[in-house]
Amino acid sequence: MDEVEAGMAAGWLEQLYEPRSVAVVGASDDIRLPGGRLLQFLLDYGYAGNVYLVNPNRAEVQGRRAYKSLLDLPERVDIAIVLVSAAASIDVLEQCAALKIPAAMFGNSGFAEIGAEGAQLQERVSRIARDAGIRLVGPNTNGIINTRNGFTATFSPVLDQKGLVLRDGPVAIVSQSGAVGAAMYYDGQRSGLPVGRLYNSGNEIGVTLEMVVDALLDSPQFNTVLCYVEGLRRPSLFIQAAHKARRLGKRIVLLKSGATASGAKAAAAHTASLSGEDRVYDGVLQELGVARARGYTHLLDIGRVLVAYPHPFGRRASILSMSGGVGIMLTDALEKAGMGLAAFDEAVLAGLEPLLPAFLGAQNPLDVSGGPFHHLDRLRAMLQLFDRNPHSDITIVAVGSFERRQMEIAEVLADEARRLEKPLFVVWFGGGDQATRHLNALNVPCFPDAERLSQAIVPGLQAGTRQPGRSGDVVPDVAAARAVLSCAREAGRKVIDEVGGKQVLRAYGIDVVREQVVDSPAAARAALDVLRLPVVAKLRSDALVHKARAGGVRLGLATSESVCAAVDDLLALARRLQLPDADVVLQEQVPAGVELLLGAKRDATFGMVITLGIGGVLTEAWDDVQVRLADGDLDVHDMLERLVHQSLLDGTGGRPKVDPAVIAPTVARFARLVRDLADDIDAIDVNPIIVHDGARAPTAVDTVLFLR
Amino acid sequence: MDEVEAGMAAGWLEQLYEPRSVAVVGASDDIRLPGGRLLQFLLDYGYAGNVYLVNPNRAEVQGRRAYKSLLDLPERVDIAIVLVSAAASIDVLEQCAALKIPAAMFGNSGFAEIGAEGAQLQERVSRIARDAGIRLVGPNTNGIINTRNGFTATFSPVLDQKGLVLRDGPVAIVSQSGAVGAAMYYDGQRSGLPVGRLYNSGNEIGVTLEMVVDALLDSPQFNTVLCYVEGLRRPSLFIQAAHKARRLGKRIVLLKSGATASGAKAAAAHTASLSGEDRVYDGVLQELGVARARGYTHLLDIGRVLVAYPHPFGRRASILSMSGGVGIMLTDALEKAGMGLAAFDEAVLAGLEPLLPAFLGAQNPLDVSGGPFHHLDRLRAMLQLFDRNPHSDITIVAVGSFERRQMEIAEVLADEARRLEKPLFVVWFGGGDQATRHLNALNVPCFPDAERLSQAIVPGLQAGTRQPGRSGDVVPDVAAARAVLSCAREAGRKVIDEVGGKQVLRAYGIDVVREQVVDSPAAARAALDVLRLPVVAKLRSDALVHKARAGGVRLGLATSESVCAAVDDLLALARRLQLPDADVVLQEQVPAGVELLLGAKRDATFGMVITLGIGGVLTEAWDDVQVRLADGDLDVHDMLERLVHQSLLDGTGGRPKVDPAVIAPTVARFARLVRDLADDIDAIDVNPIIVHDGARAPTAVDTVLFLR
Repeated sequence: MDEVEAGMAAGWLEQLYEPRSVAVVGASDDIRLPGGRLLQFLLDYGYAGNVYLVNPNRAEVQGRRAYKSLLDLPERVDIAIVLVSAAASIDVLEQCAALKIPAAMFGNSGFAEIGAEGAQLQERVSRIARDAGIRLVGPNTNGIINTRNGFTATFSPVLDQKGLVLRDGPVAIVSQSGAVGAAMYYDGQRSGLPVGRLYNSGNEIGVTLEMVVDALLDSPQFNTVLCYVEGLRRPSLFIQAAHKARRLGKRIVLLKSGATASGAKAAAAHTASLSGEDRVYDGVLQELGVARARGYTHLLDIGRVLVAYPHPFGRRASILSMSGGVGIMLTDALEKAGMGLAAFDEAVLAGLEPLLPAFLGAQNPLDVSGGPFHHLDRLRAMLQLFDRNPHSDITIVAVGSFERRQMEIAEVLADEARRLEKPLFVVWFGGGDQATRHLNALNVPCFPDAERLSQAIVPGLQAGTRQPGRSGDVVPDVAAARAVLSCAREAGRKVIDEVGGKQVLRAYGIDVVREQVVDSPAAARAALDVLRLPVVAKLRSDALVHKARAGGVRLGLATSESVCAAVDDLLALARRLQLPDADVVLQEQVPAGVELLLGAKRDATFGMVITLGIGGVLTEAWDDVQVRLADGDLDVHDMLERLVHQSLLDGTGGRPKVDPAVIAPTVARFARLVRDLADDIDAIDVNPIIVHDGARAPTAVDTVLFLR
Repeated sequence: MDEVEAGMAAGWLEQLYEPRSVAVVGASDDIRLPGGRLLQFLLDYGYAGNVYLVNPNRAEVQGRRAYKSLLDLPERVDIAIVLVSAAASIDVLEQCAALKIPAAMFGNSGFAEIGAEGAQLQERVSRIARDAGIRLVGPNTNGIINTRNGFTATFSPVLDQKGLVLRDGPVAIVSQSGAVGAAMYYDGQRSGLPVGRLYNSGNEIGVTLEMVVDALLDSPQFNTVLCYVEGLRRPSLFIQAAHKARRLGKRIVLLKSGATASGAKAAAAHTASLSGEDRVYDGVLQELGVARARGYTHLLDIGRVLVAYPHPFGRRASILSMSGGVGIMLTDALEKAGMGLAAFDEAVLAGLEPLLPAFLGAQNPLDVSGGPFHHLDRLRAMLQLFDRNPHSDITIVAVGSFERRQMEIAEVLADEARRLEKPLFVVWFGGGDQATRHLNALNVPCFPDAERLSQAIVPGLQAGTRQPGRSGDVVPDVAAARAVLSCAREAGRKVIDEVGGKQVLRAYGIDVVREQVVDSPAAARAALDVLRLPVVAKLRSDALVHKARAGGVRLGLATSESVCAAVDDLLALARRLQLPDADVVLQEQVPAGVELLLGAKRDATFGMVITLGIGGVLTEAWDDVQVRLADGDLDVHDMLERLVHQSLLDGTGGRPKVDPAVIAPTVARFARLVRDLADDIDAIDVNPIIVHDGARAPTAVDTVLFLR
């Protein structure tokens, strides 16, 4: 907990959202200006606290008395909303400090976002707030909203309309973009998503997004927090909040923008080049149980599903569709999203018989044509049948085109949804705006097409059984590993080659290929006393990057003669290439298996992360890895399952089957190594690490380690 | 052209959509029934022709005179709309025949879709219609619509509302699902897409979707045809229509459902298992210039873009966003969709200076905050600057949250769009329903988020230069190829192994590895007179499926001694495995290169298709191929560019660069082979075919050919 946080009392967020009184500094008559709009909203949306207006040039604003400065107010307000220029706001903040006003929202811009000059101002604001213990929202935020008490402290024009009724509820939106946050709040509200709070975090000099998310989870009101993130300033607090959410059965959903732009760049380590920002977010959020939204609409759609059905549900859907075509499209979309169709049991089949005309078949997806939507008792009966089928987890109704009768049908669906034990979802195609809003407002998620429905459902699905890795079985020889690192560092190296690298791996109980370093044919002959033939010979030199391309690798040496000849050859090659430091590594040849990559890198946001994926010489071409936090659960089963090229792992094609249970201890030991040595290393590649048949632990064949 | 088509006069579709008079058989007072609704719509939506009602039980329906039968009508109508039971409709159709009524729409169901009994009725309907030369719409269709003349011959409840104004225009919708088609027509209309016609094709016993698409392209009114397809009944006519569309500069967009469900299944040939229905559609539509929609909303979205901008445009976007966050999301989404940002030229930078406050930077995406949306002359000026920038192809404006002022802003955007030379697109986030509809109605495509915008734009982009393959350089020895096939057929084989297969390839001028078949060490020694060392030895037997796994392959045999020893070994293995037909293939070892797969298979819809992709022993794991029609253009550049694992092809990792120009002649020759022998073969795999450095043609190393 840093200084700012330490200065805050528990319940600080509640205090921010529930001020008894507020001052608007920079209040204006002109609703084209922030100080005009924000004031108007506070008055229009029913905020019941005292609202004081401050404007040095006016005695009256929007028909209410205006004060020259905060110092003239008749009471100490709970929050000052500051909408004057950046330069002028310094004085205002000093007045807040003098008056011991506990919180301020800086809706003005002109700070760090405009460059060096603004950054200086921002530093002054930050210092004054910190010294005075003022909770600071922003600067450069367009505001925050508490739906419950009408504290609509925003100047976003989304609220600029008559007749908008705001609905309180368990969803909160926290956004690093004011425009995005305000638009989401509004699009959520008008489509029936009960958004209780909006927090636009602006430049985050005091309160950051992570702090708000964390505090919202403590409130019994909120079970779903939707976040728009451009970059996490306090990733460890975010991780902590995610763990809290999991403990409490609440959900965080995150939309990360800018992920492609700052994507994977070329890097020395495979692991680093394969694990760009987008993949790291994918892996870390997956691990934390945070749902990742792929876009603006998707974020709201996920929110809709999680609010309606906070308890995870299964993947088998029963579909009732008024159109065969939409039934097929739903089947396609569910399959693409990793779901499937429920089998109709005897009871469903028997029950459907009197409800369906003879010419419609009783299969899933059930094409009912228009009938049950004209005879709504049949619709109800069918939904009940589906709900009682033990092979079915959710029900999806596809309906549409009934413009005139949409509300009648929607009422029945909403009424049934209340009775059903399992989640009910609706696809409404061909019109139905009113029905869609109504259903969503009653927590029956309703979408205009199959793709949006299936993409929105995914984060609500039950996760597989978590299978955290275990490494408790081996006590690592940390001293031996550290010795390799310091030795390399003393020699001025930034890179530790495969020989040193495998010593480090071995110190952590990871199986490595047996090898000997030799510098003459005679030494090679001696080495063969401890190595089993056939062996591989590799020329080793700091200056030799691509051994194989330089002709520096000899495979399948099966006799001591061929080994000695190869060593002789390679040393001659080294002389030709002018590599005075060269020697030769003799390695036992590991039987063919599945070549994986196991790696680690320092991520700019999340620190050390572990990468597991398809390895071998074509690693970059496969481009198929999963990333997780080094100090996370490391569910190897889940990581392997999410790789794209599954047929490499499934035991087909004469390859060994890659069993997560066999790999997991190695991955766990590697993660322990990474955590222990995190301060000293930037990246490690173990590639390939070869997976064998049966229960034998995988063997690390090559590795490279990049010092910090 | 089949019988049905031959019986039709030119302009048949126009006649269908513009009847001077119509009879509704089964007209009803009850608008819950098809015969009630359809009649009501015809009367409500302004159809000006004569409408006669037929109902044997009523003298009056919906306040109008009803006739007992078609035979009682005072004139011969142009179309009979039949909404009585399937059984009763036979008589009606016979009356049509007797009266020489030229067209009938069967809106009733109870035909082939319900099973054998219905199929018999359908066959009778089909025969009567064919014999009498009656154009038949349906059966089992919910109708067709001509927006222009109010001929709303549908009973879909989408039209069941007051105040719906239909707008004519250049978009046509043709659907194999009535509910989907009607919903699309309505969702299109109400969102500003000018849909001139709807055709729901039902069971297609007379008129099929392909015939309608083809005929619509002949009409000067239509430039964009949106199709919902469950299966093409006349794929060759569809291909013909697609070529026509390209010639005329018109566009077809297709949504294919059921693609995942009937996806790739295990098959003997790699090519067949890799080229499931979904990939075949992808490849064929790509080749034909038909845009493929990924879902219901996407289909309409693409329509919106193509109607607004029928001429293809470039990939460089200038973005003006009122929110930095939405600007970043747009950048992400464009990049994912293969587009990018335009560079601002000097003129843009200079022009922006007086228009932007100092604290906003002049970079793309341009974050303008709210300013230009309050001062709309600035917005206009910025759009003009972007439009004149030669590095920019399209402009995207992201705006939102201005609920009260939305129409004012939309008017300015629409007005500017008319002046601009380059396409203008809008993302409207946070409300804006009215503005969105308005902009779309004025052909300024407007979407609620960055993802939908970018996905909708893609089909409007300029394609790369088409580089059709050429094979004119080699005269194939067709007789030699056919001899191999007949020889195998006479021997009762269904499969031709690599030795015979490579003879076929060689007959078409495809480079194959040099090889000899031997059955003893002595023969092997003789074979080495014509083969260059090192060689590979492979045991060959009809009963030996997995050579390598059985130990039947020896690589890198570099001396004649090792060759003879290997042959001896392999023949001994054959005896142990009891393979009396076994012999040994000696092959020159081809230097390492990039291993591709080249294949062909018979697709159930499109006939012979060509597959090109990543080959080698891990072909199935890479799962990365492109499919095209065997008699299409075979743009190898495009095929290679669309493979997922690009880094295998780009010359990195010490591999040769795969140059489309070098590969194209081989692919073209292979396609010629496939076309020539299409009647005799079901599938061919050439895997691997190895790509070399430089201009050397690739070498086919292994192949297998499946006879029909």
